[in-house]
Formats: sequence, structure tokens, C-alpha cells
Amino acid sequence: MSHSLYHVLGAKQFDRPTLDELFAASGEMERVVAEGGSNRFANKILTTLFFEASTRTRLSFEAAMHRLGGRVIGTENAAQFSSAIKGETLEDTIRIVSGYSDLIVMRHTEIGAAKQAASVATVPVINAGDGAGEHPTQALLDLYSIRKELGRIDGIRIAMIGDLANGRTVHSLSYMLANYKNVHIDFVAPDNVRIPIDVKRYLVEKGVSYEESTDLTAVAATADVVYQTRIQKERFLSLEEYEKASGKYTIDEALLGVLRPDSIILHPLPRAGEIEPSVDRDPRAAYFRQAQNGLYLRMALIEKCLQ
Amino acid sequence: MSHSLYHVLGAKQFDRPTLDELFAASGEMERVVAEGGSNRFANKILTTLFFEASTRTRLSFEAAMHRLGGRVIGTENAAQFSSAIKGETLEDTIRIVSGYSDLIVMRHTEIGAAKQAASVATVPVINAGDGAGEHPTQALLDLYSIRKELGRIDGIRIAMIGDLANGRTVHSLSYMLANYKNVHIDFVAPDNVRIPIDVKRYLVEKGVSYEESTDLTAVAATADVVYQTRIQKERFLSLEEYEKASGKYTIDEALLGVLRPDSIILHPLPRAGEIEPSVDRDPRAAYFRQAQNGLYLRMALIEKCLQ
Amino acid sequence: MSHSLYHVLGAKQFDRPTLDELFAASGEMERVVAEGGSNRFANKILTTLFFEASTRTRLSFEAAMHRLGGRVIGTENAAQFSSAIKGETLEDTIRIVSGYSDLIVMRHTEIGAAKQAASVATVPVINAGDGAGEHPTQALLDLYSIRKELGRIDGIRIAMIGDLANGRTVHSLSYMLANYKNVHIDFVAPDNVRIPIDVKRYLVEKGVSYEESTDLTAVAATADVVYQTRIQKERFLSLEEYEKASGKYTIDEALLGVLRPDSIILHPLPRAGEIEPSVDRDPRAAYFRQAQNGLYLRMALIEKCLQ
Repeated sequence: MSHSLYHVLGAKQFDRPTLDELFAASGEMERVVAEGGSNRFANKILTTLFFEASTRTRLSFEAAMHRLGGRVIGTENAAQFSSAIKGETLEDTIRIVSGYSDLIVMRHTEIGAAKQAASVATVPVINAGDGAGEHPTQALLDLYSIRKELGRIDGIRIAMIGDLANGRTVHSLSYMLANYKNVHIDFVAPDNVRIPIDVKRYLVEKGVSYEESTDLTAVAATADVVYQTRIQKERFLSLEEYEKASGKYTIDEALLGVLRPDSIILHPLPRAGEIEPSVDRDPRAAYFRQAQNGLYLRMALIEKCLQ
Repeated sequence: MSHSLYHVLGAKQFDRPTLDELFAASGEMERVVAEGGSNRFANKILTTLFFEASTRTRLSFEAAMHRLGGRVIGTENAAQFSSAIKGETLEDTIRIVSGYSDLIVMRHTEIGAAKQAASVATVPVINAGDGAGEHPTQALLDLYSIRKELGRIDGIRIAMIGDLANGRTVHSLSYMLANYKNVHIDFVAPDNVRIPIDVKRYLVEKGVSYEESTDLTAVAATADVVYQTRIQKERFLSLEEYEKASGKYTIDEALLGVLRPDSIILHPLPRAGEIEPSVDRDPRAAYFRQAQNGLYLRMALIEKCLQ
Repeated sequence: MSHSLYHVLGAKQFDRPTLDELFAASGEMERVVAEGGSNRFANKILTTLFFEASTRTRLSFEAAMHRLGGRVIGTENAAQFSSAIKGETLEDTIRIVSGYSDLIVMRHTEIGAAKQAASVATVPVINAGDGAGEHPTQALLDLYSIRKELGRIDGIRIAMIGDLANGRTVHSLSYMLANYKNVHIDFVAPDNVRIPIDVKRYLVEKGVSYEESTDLTAVAATADVVYQTRIQKERFLSLEEYEKASGKYTIDEALLGVLRPDSIILHPLPRAGEIEPSVDRDPRAAYFRQAQNGLYLRMALIEKCLQ
């Protein structure tokens, strides 16, 4: 990896000063968008290199680049580079694409792919998700949303709910929260998709307080942040088991009655029933504002990489 | 639906003054393109959200946005948003994409999808076709082409030919023609794909004169506009039946001899044999000029939505 | 074909003065990119019309257009235009797309498609590969790379290695080399994929010296340029035969010891094992610089077409 380039590869690379700087820049970007965009990267090209389709994430990065005056090339069909017929290594693909543009945003199916790409890239690489590995820009926009909504991250109680075994978002967010003081995490998951041991070990090592629970109502009553995630149907052995887990931790109007008035509900989206549509009208439902924050946060990251 | 936003959802929303204004603006756009484009929407972003591929329509909108100095993000792969795995509602997709851009052009497979999208969008939505429902921008460019080629729409005789049951284009065009005086429509269709009863009822209600016929030659002799459409092979029960219908209403050099010298031939394209290539050389063959008009008309619509 | 338009269709259209002019312009484009790009085509639109996916080539053209300030629309899904359902002719597609943009870059699966497109286009067409036919922009960037690396093309000895029967790149490059003096080509290929008779006839007619060989080591010792290509697995009758051929002509560290110190190794990429990764560190390994040259050469071609 070229040490003069700023890559965004994983949650653990971010320390407190970097996060503070990034969130201040994101706030500045809200102003830039409100004023109709900027031309500061008018001659720069972003390549979005998606080895699996993720249109929402791709569009978010592309909009961010355009709002800064930049240009975008890309594909959701990058898997053809390494297809059986063409058989190219990821390194060769990255070496070539590096020559076409000033920044690469990459989504890949395999853990570690972003790091591998950065090791040969001659331009910065932003990891937009690598398999079951990391999705650091999602965790960053989650944190930014908490700070913006609550005014602080230190001292919060956050409940993370859903498939905590397979959800890379909650892993990345847990790692990043270790930068803050007096954070308490309640993990609420069905038995077969509990938070992994290595996340828990990391939290212990960093002195972050956490508990595991199966009682959402009890946990929700004390939470500043309710971080709901999708129960991924395909992970369960039977539809019946899936539906039990899925139905168990739904955020509905009954739960709204339990939540503190100054708390917020976040979700990385898409949702598939685990937050009822009627909840959307509640001012604590912050998940669409959270998605919007992704634009500002990604603009700030692009600026950091291109500076 | 937010009433401060200007959405383009269906043919019936357009009254005569709006059409007049739009066609004047389209004429202005021809001048803009001839002079090398404009930068009036330099900081605006258009999202093309296609739940089914329609490259021609998508490219037409994207070119229109670029000719106005704007920027484009988008996908022909929008169906993945609502895929079995991700399972997101159209409303959620639109809420999020609204936050990335200033205007959404949407193509969908289901009737009413555009209206549903507009009901939650925070930016204008243009319907680029929703299933068997509407395709208002096609009807608008058809009308604009008639006005440009003939100098008027009032008083024309138009023959609509082909699969009039399934062709959403002829429905939208019929609705819009009801804004003009003394229009006469001749519907020429194979028996199993005749114009639907609700279109006829609308015309009766609005006082538009029409007839149904199976004799193209007789009808063509008096027409100002011959509006040919594709017979959609997949609607017929047997290939033999399809070929009989298809062959019956072909526009060929023999029919050119019957047509009035000041008439025009239109087609929404693509064509698949129902206009012979030799007809292209005739000055009355206006279908490629018509396709070109789509660019100007869509520029005018984008301007109307972004103003 | 409109004779006032400059199309790029095949290798044989390029004479020596045109090549000289193009390579001078490509050198100028390196300066333009180093200085942060240009805005000379700020209001122009390029359409990339790919009837088969070729993301690397597409991104290269799109980056070239952006570096010149231009705009890009396009699709890798152009095959849907001529799909069974829509059934449109290539000519109709090109007529319509011509109206949306200022330049078309087309990749197609069939020989002669680019010429067919140019015959009806109202804007310039650049052939980005038409089936087993031509890929002239690859041959141009190969030649430009030789001139840049060695300072000359006249008088070089070049070894072309690999599947010389099916590789359209080596055919186009051979045709173009006939513009230069005292060039000698050594064709090194497995028996079943030797250079075709019509290429050899053309070289004889133009007075270009060539030999066919199966001994890479002997040939490499005298070569100024070692032009390696991929052995296409799918052309061989058995995996065993493929692997024998593939293994036989690998460029590895042993071969580096045989190569002259002032020679270069080129490859159109992607590679699939026929150049070992350890070779990349050798300064004579010019294939990634060659890929980068594609950007400059394509910028020069775009400029030539749009002037």
C-alpha cells in the first residue's frame, strides 16, 4: 500500500481525531449541497468498481462526487474482469483502472479485497463493502447520524438489534464506538445469530461496556439509540424459525411507547418488515435522515482522499 | 404527492395551455442544442431509475440532461432494490434516492408505480413508462412532432395502426389529442387487438370523432398523420395469426402511392418490419425526426420540473 | 458512409502521416492529463454502445472523454436493442443514437458491424472491437507504446506470441506495422493457432519481413519488442493441449535473462498466466504503461473525430 495515499479500508483505521475532523467536514458538506454544490473537484474522476451490484451505495457515492463537481465512470459488472474466461487478478484490474481515474470506490464479494486493491493502487481506494468483512462508510455515516441527532456520542447507550452474526454493519460500528467514552452497547439477537466472539473480545480489550439480551422491550426503555437491522432470511434453516426471529424484534407503535422521548431509531436500510411503516411518522424515526447523511459523509471522505 | 413539485405522471394531466408552453419550450431547446448546449442546470443531478431496461428512453433523457449542463446517475438494474433478498418497497427506494438528486426519471413494470413514487418523492418524478399504464413523454413527443411537421394539431385526421389494445403509446396519444379541436382518429387494428373501450369512452366524453376500421388503404388516403406501431408478437396465440396481422398493415411503397403528399408517417420505434426500409427515403417518413424530437421535448420537460 | 465524418473502423485506414499526427497528439494529451485535464469538449456527448460487455475498454474511452471535459452516456446492454422481442436493426439503433450525441464508440459481436454503423451514422463512429474482426484502437495504442518506449518504429524486430489465429489484436497490429520501414515480425504460436494466411499475404504484398517459429527463446534473444498475448482456453479441444501450449510460451524470469537489455514486453491484457507476476518488477515490463497509453491515444482519437 502506498503510504502517501489515503485509503478507506476498515473501521479500525479511524481514531477519534480523524472521526472529529470527518464529521466536521460532513457538516460543511451539508452547507455545500444546500448552496447548490461545489466545483472543487471539477477535473477529477471517480471510478465505481462494483464486483456485485449495490445500486444504493453506488448512487450515493456517485451523487457525492457530482455534488463536488467531479466526474464518474464505473460498472456494477466488475466481476467480468475476473471471470472464468478473462481470469484477471484483482491486482491487474486495479493497476489498470488506477490509470484512468483519481479515486476508486470498490465493492467486492471477498473479505480483504479492498486491502488487496489498495496494495497496488496508484490512487486512493474506498472500501464500499468487502463480503462479510467491512463496510466502513456505513459505520461512519451511522456515527455521524448519532452525533448529529443527539449532539454527542460519548456516554450513549445503543441497542443493536437483529442478525448480529452476519451483519458487517454492526461489527464496524462496534469497532468505531470504541473510540468514544462511556458507551454501552446492548446486543439483541435471536440465539442463532448472536454477536461474534471476536467483536466482544475487541470491546473488552478497549473497555467498552456491553450486554447481550433477548428482551428488546427492556433494553429499548433505556436506549439513546435503537439500531435495528434486517434479519436476513437466507441465513435461517427454516422459514418458521426466520419468521419467529423476525417477528420477535419488530419496531412497531407498541415499542414507540416504551422508547425514551429523546431517543432515535436508526437502520442501515433496506428494511424488510422489521420496522413497521407507521413508525416512519414518529420524529424519533431517523433512518431516512441517516441515509441522507450518507451523502454528506461520503462527500467528506472523497474530499479527504483527493486532497 | 407534494403539490409544490411538478411531476409528469400521465397523459391526462396536460391541458392545452401546458402543451402550448411545453412545445414552445421544445422549439427553444432545438436552438439550445444547435448552439452547443446550455449550462443552466450545471449543478443539478438527474437519477434514471429503470426497473426494466429501456436503453433508448434512458439515453434520450440522459442526453437531454447533459445538453442542459446537468449531471446523471442511475441504473437499469433498479429491480434489485425490490428483489426477493432485499425486499424493499418502492416508497423506501424513492425516499432514499430523492436525497441524492434533483429529479427522478422512472421506468417501472407496474401500472401506477410512477404515481406511487411521486407520493413520497421530495423531488419531481417523470414517468418514463409504467407497465401497460402510461408513457406520457412518448405521447408528448408524438404531438410535438405533428405540430412541427404539419404546423397544427387542430383539425388533423390521424390513423393509428397496429396493436391498439396493448400499445400504451396510442392510449396516451388519444387522451392528449382530446385537447385539440376537430381531430378525427381512425383506429386500424387486427380484430384481437382493437382499441380498448375505456379509450373510446374518453373520446366520446370529450367529443373527439373516431372510427374503427380494418382497411388501412382506405383510411390512409385521407390521413394527415399515419401513426404506425409494432405488432407485439408475444400477444398472439400462434405465429401464423401474428404474421397475418403483421403483414396486413405494413407500410410499403404501394401505400406511399395512396398517401396524401402533405401527410406524415410516425412510429414510436423500434419497428420490426411494419414499415419497410425503402419507405425511409420518402420525405413523409418522419419517424427518425420524431425520435430526435424526443430529445428536445425531454429537455423542455426537465426544465419545467427543475424550475 | 458520410465522407465528411472521420470514423475509426479498421487498421488499414491508417497511413503513416495519420499515425504520426495521432501519436504527436497523444503525446500532447499526456501533458493535458498531467495538468489536470481540459475543457475543450465541455458541451460534447460521447455514447458508448457496447453490444457485449468490455468494461476495461469502455472505462478507458469514458475516462478519455471526461479528461477532455466531455460528457458520456451509454450502455453495456446494447444487445437488447436487437433482441428477439424488440428486433431492431443495427442501422435503426444507430440512426436514433446519432441524434443524442456527438460521437459513438461501439463494441459489437459481429465482423463488419462498425462499418455498417458508420454507413448510417450522422456522427463519427469509433470501432472498439467488432467480433473476430478489428480492434483498431488497441493496435494504435500498441504502436504508440512502441514508439514511446523505443523512440522509433522503423527497423524494429517484434515477436508476436500466443494465439495468433484468433487474436484480432495481432492482426490489426501487423497491418499497421506495414506503414513502417525495415520491420521484422517473428510469429511464435502453437501449431493449431498460427497466424492466418491472409495476414501473411498482406505482409508479403507490403514487403514486410516475417518468420514463423516455435522457439520463443531463440526469437526473444533478438527482439526489440516481445508482444505476448493470451492463449484463449476456449479455443482448444482439451485442457491438456491448452496447458501444454500455455506453459510453453510463458514469459518468466528465465526468459528475462535471454531478452536484450533495451527491449520491451507488451501485452494487450488481460493476462491469464502467460506472463509471471515476478516479471512485473523488470523495467522492460511495459504492459501497464501500455494500458495507460490507451487513455492518451483514445483522447487523441476523440479529438480527431470531434474536430
